[in-house]
Amino acid sequence: MTMRLNCDLGEGFGQWQTQTDALAMPHIDMANIACGFHASDPLTMSQTVQLAKTHSVSIGAHPGYPDLVGFGRRSMAMKHDELVSTVVYQVGALQAIAQIHGVSVDYIKPHGAMYNDMMANSEVFNAAIQACELLSLPLMVLAGQACERYINTGANQSVSLLKEGFCDRRYSNSGALVPRSHSQGVLTDSSDILQQAIEMSKGYVTTVEGDRLALSIDSLCVHGDNSTSVALIAEIRNQIKGE
Amino acid sequence: MTMRLNCDLGEGFGQWQTQTDALAMPHIDMANIACGFHASDPLTMSQTVQLAKTHSVSIGAHPGYPDLVGFGRRSMAMKHDELVSTVVYQVGALQAIAQIHGVSVDYIKPHGAMYNDMMANSEVFNAAIQACELLSLPLMVLAGQACERYINTGANQSVSLLKEGFCDRRYSNSGALVPRSHSQGVLTDSSDILQQAIEMSKGYVTTVEGDRLALSIDSLCVHGDNSTSVALIAEIRNQIKGE
Amino acid sequence: MTMRLNCDLGEGFGQWQTQTDALAMPHIDMANIACGFHASDPLTMSQTVQLAKTHSVSIGAHPGYPDLVGFGRRSMAMKHDELVSTVVYQVGALQAIAQIHGVSVDYIKPHGAMYNDMMANSEVFNAAIQACELLSLPLMVLAGQACERYINTGANQSVSLLKEGFCDRRYSNSGALVPRSHSQGVLTDSSDILQQAIEMSKGYVTTVEGDRLALSIDSLCVHGDNSTSVALIAEIRNQIKGE
Amino acid sequence: MTMRLNCDLGEGFGQWQTQTDALAMPHIDMANIACGFHASDPLTMSQTVQLAKTHSVSIGAHPGYPDLVGFGRRSMAMKHDELVSTVVYQVGALQAIAQIHGVSVDYIKPHGAMYNDMMANSEVFNAAIQACELLSLPLMVLAGQACERYINTGANQSVSLLKEGFCDRRYSNSGALVPRSHSQGVLTDSSDILQQAIEMSKGYVTTVEGDRLALSIDSLCVHGDNSTSVALIAEIRNQIKGE
Repeated sequence: MTMRLNCDLGEGFGQWQTQTDALAMPHIDMANIACGFHASDPLTMSQTVQLAKTHSVSIGAHPGYPDLVGFGRRSMAMKHDELVSTVVYQVGALQAIAQIHGVSVDYIKPHGAMYNDMMANSEVFNAAIQACELLSLPLMVLAGQACERYINTGANQSVSLLKEGFCDRRYSNSGALVPRSHSQGVLTDSSDILQQAIEMSKGYVTTVEGDRLALSIDSLCVHGDNSTSVALIAEIRNQIKGE
Repeated sequence: MTMRLNCDLGEGFGQWQTQTDALAMPHIDMANIACGFHASDPLTMSQTVQLAKTHSVSIGAHPGYPDLVGFGRRSMAMKHDELVSTVVYQVGALQAIAQIHGVSVDYIKPHGAMYNDMMANSEVFNAAIQACELLSLPLMVLAGQACERYINTGANQSVSLLKEGFCDRRYSNSGALVPRSHSQGVLTDSSDILQQAIEMSKGYVTTVEGDRLALSIDSLCVHGDNSTSVALIAEIRNQIKGE
Repeated sequence: MTMRLNCDLGEGFGQWQTQTDALAMPHIDMANIACGFHASDPLTMSQTVQLAKTHSVSIGAHPGYPDLVGFGRRSMAMKHDELVSTVVYQVGALQAIAQIHGVSVDYIKPHGAMYNDMMANSEVFNAAIQACELLSLPLMVLAGQACERYINTGANQSVSLLKEGFCDRRYSNSGALVPRSHSQGVLTDSSDILQQAIEMSKGYVTTVEGDRLALSIDSLCVHGDNSTSVALIAEIRNQIKGE
Repeated sequence: MTMRLNCDLGEGFGQWQTQTDALAMPHIDMANIACGFHASDPLTMSQTVQLAKTHSVSIGAHPGYPDLVGFGRRSMAMKHDELVSTVVYQVGALQAIAQIHGVSVDYIKPHGAMYNDMMANSEVFNAAIQACELLSLPLMVLAGQACERYINTGANQSVSLLKEGFCDRRYSNSGALVPRSHSQGVLTDSSDILQQAIEMSKGYVTTVEGDRLALSIDSLCVHGDNSTSVALIAEIRNQIKGE
């Protein structure tokens, strides 16, 4: 099985629309589609689902905190029941929109601060797991250290995990991401990103310490928010899929 | 088949909650549950669905215009595609919340200004019909003149219509509602409302002109927003169902 | 006195920001700054006010309907008191943000559907006038037919009107705008727009019927939402101001 | 100078209105009025300001996090500039509404999670202080330990602090509030609350350890969200003011 590329798409809102969704969609396998709480709106969701369908791209729900102005990037202290119902609400909205286009939602990947909180905080993780369990959908998580920690708790036996890797973030030997604040935390050079994508497709990464770390990954997260990043997606696809 | 009572419920928002939902639910057959655009939020929806399930009440989606501050009572000039996707979004959100409680959404009844616009404006009606058709759900509409007009257009052959009557609004011989601005437009006396409910359950109303008008109705709309109106629901139920 | 150029600016929202505000600001005299209801947010407002201050541009409040997803372009049926307080709220928010930058709000220009409704509907116009009167600020209105109608009612004796012209909209002999739906309603050719701007600066327009119509204008409305339109602003400025 | 009573008011939203504002207002000296982000809306703000004016009650702006559904009770990770402009925006909106009623805003008291974060986190405190400094308004803070800490930093020399006490929260000898989770953290008995109010008006509280702690307080925070609490406000007023 070849590595699948996932990308956040449909993150415009009302009249503020990104222009690169149509360019990125042909190159990816899985579209994480915003559900109206951190970005998007019903009509934008419908158009994004139609675009994914046209390119036979798998649809994932990409729920976020209820914070349009902060684009879901600001952590919010939500209680368990609030969080579960907030995720279920957004996924259901996207499911109905997918249904009217004759397609369906295949998995859930929380957005921004909710994703980060989920990987850092077991309460948020458990809320995400519960939403997935109730809706019988897989949860996309960050491959590596944090992920393993939760798998070992056995809390999520009934929920499939889709493990993703970031080809533009440096990993440490421990399997954790090197923080963005660290000078080497984020890869900015295209050739470095491409190189890490190729490594990940072969099951490992070269860590910040210079060692080879095995990393089991189901999907590679790529970015499609500008024309440069879209070109890089095409190149990654070409290299790892030989297309 | 006896007349079924429908009631708008779950119309609190965040910390602003109505206290009478739990009192009204045992007496009704169909709950029109707000979906977060004119009222309610994910957690409130989940609690309202649970309450409906407890009392074996059928669940209807009650979508509204995106206008919390105006409670969906202000008409908004939305385009066809915006309107269809806005309705589908809200219904889907409620469907997922119903799903996690093991129940389902049985019909759609637009709220407030969207309902009024739908009965007065064929473009809005057609958008509601299209949403229902795409989701394979019946649409609840106002029995009488306006309803007949649309049925005759054949625009909605594939969508079931649930025709409701208002026991607290006076009808004219034409089958139209007497406007609220008219001194006799709204029934405020409980005995008058009860009397009209009994008439409707027998297939007619006494019009403002004093005549008997045949009215085919599937459901009677009742209100449960305060303790007086809840008591009246119980009395209506007792009278028309002999319970 | 030379003609002043006004332009809607600061109409991004959260992470969705326009890139041309900084390019347009040096060429205009008056910035109509969005106030958070149809676009913008507190931080964006603060940055836009700072940019206006840097270029010594007069600041106008640009309030809209509470409809971010529709960008304030959808008419909403608001009552008089709702409308007045909604305008006052937005203007006050911008005034405080202006105050912390050491500048002030000089006038009010409603946005989108609120502007159109104001020019077409005396109730909305009266609400706008009342807000301006209460806040002792001038109201920017469309020069010509509609404007004259209201001036003649004497309803707004105490509120100064700033009359603006649109250099990219065709006028009829009656002084009304030719509807956008009309093939000649909107000028799209830069040289046509520039020509009309020059005419307006001289106090007239050539109507769709081919006649010369006198039009008393205080300000010319220009658009700065993309690099082409910004270049046109610079050219208009150069032509009518000799700068 | 006698102790002044402050109370959060105007915390309805749209059609969800509290009924007790009109009952509480006659008994208080300072109304902390919600500004539309955690509660309230332009029309509600206008009505609340009018009510305060009628009873000659001083008006404070009560800004909150942008979180209507969570009533501003959920902490949000906002950056300094976002926070300052968010507070300034809300205060300005209320100032304009006060202006049209011929009154003004006298101070700022953050709401809910923003208030708690401000007392616990120096970054949030500094953002609140900066907003107050820019707007030349006093900041209401919690009297005692946390307050003293900040005063000692000298960060807020130019901003007046209004120190408030909570008559329904138990204090420890250190001057800190006993946490709500502690069995004695919250006073629920009316006579206990009244007793503590009287103590506070005399400049001290009896701590959870049973000692007398001196506490310098400018204002006593009371609650007016139901008829029982309103009755208690009247009694507190009667006791400490001899009215």
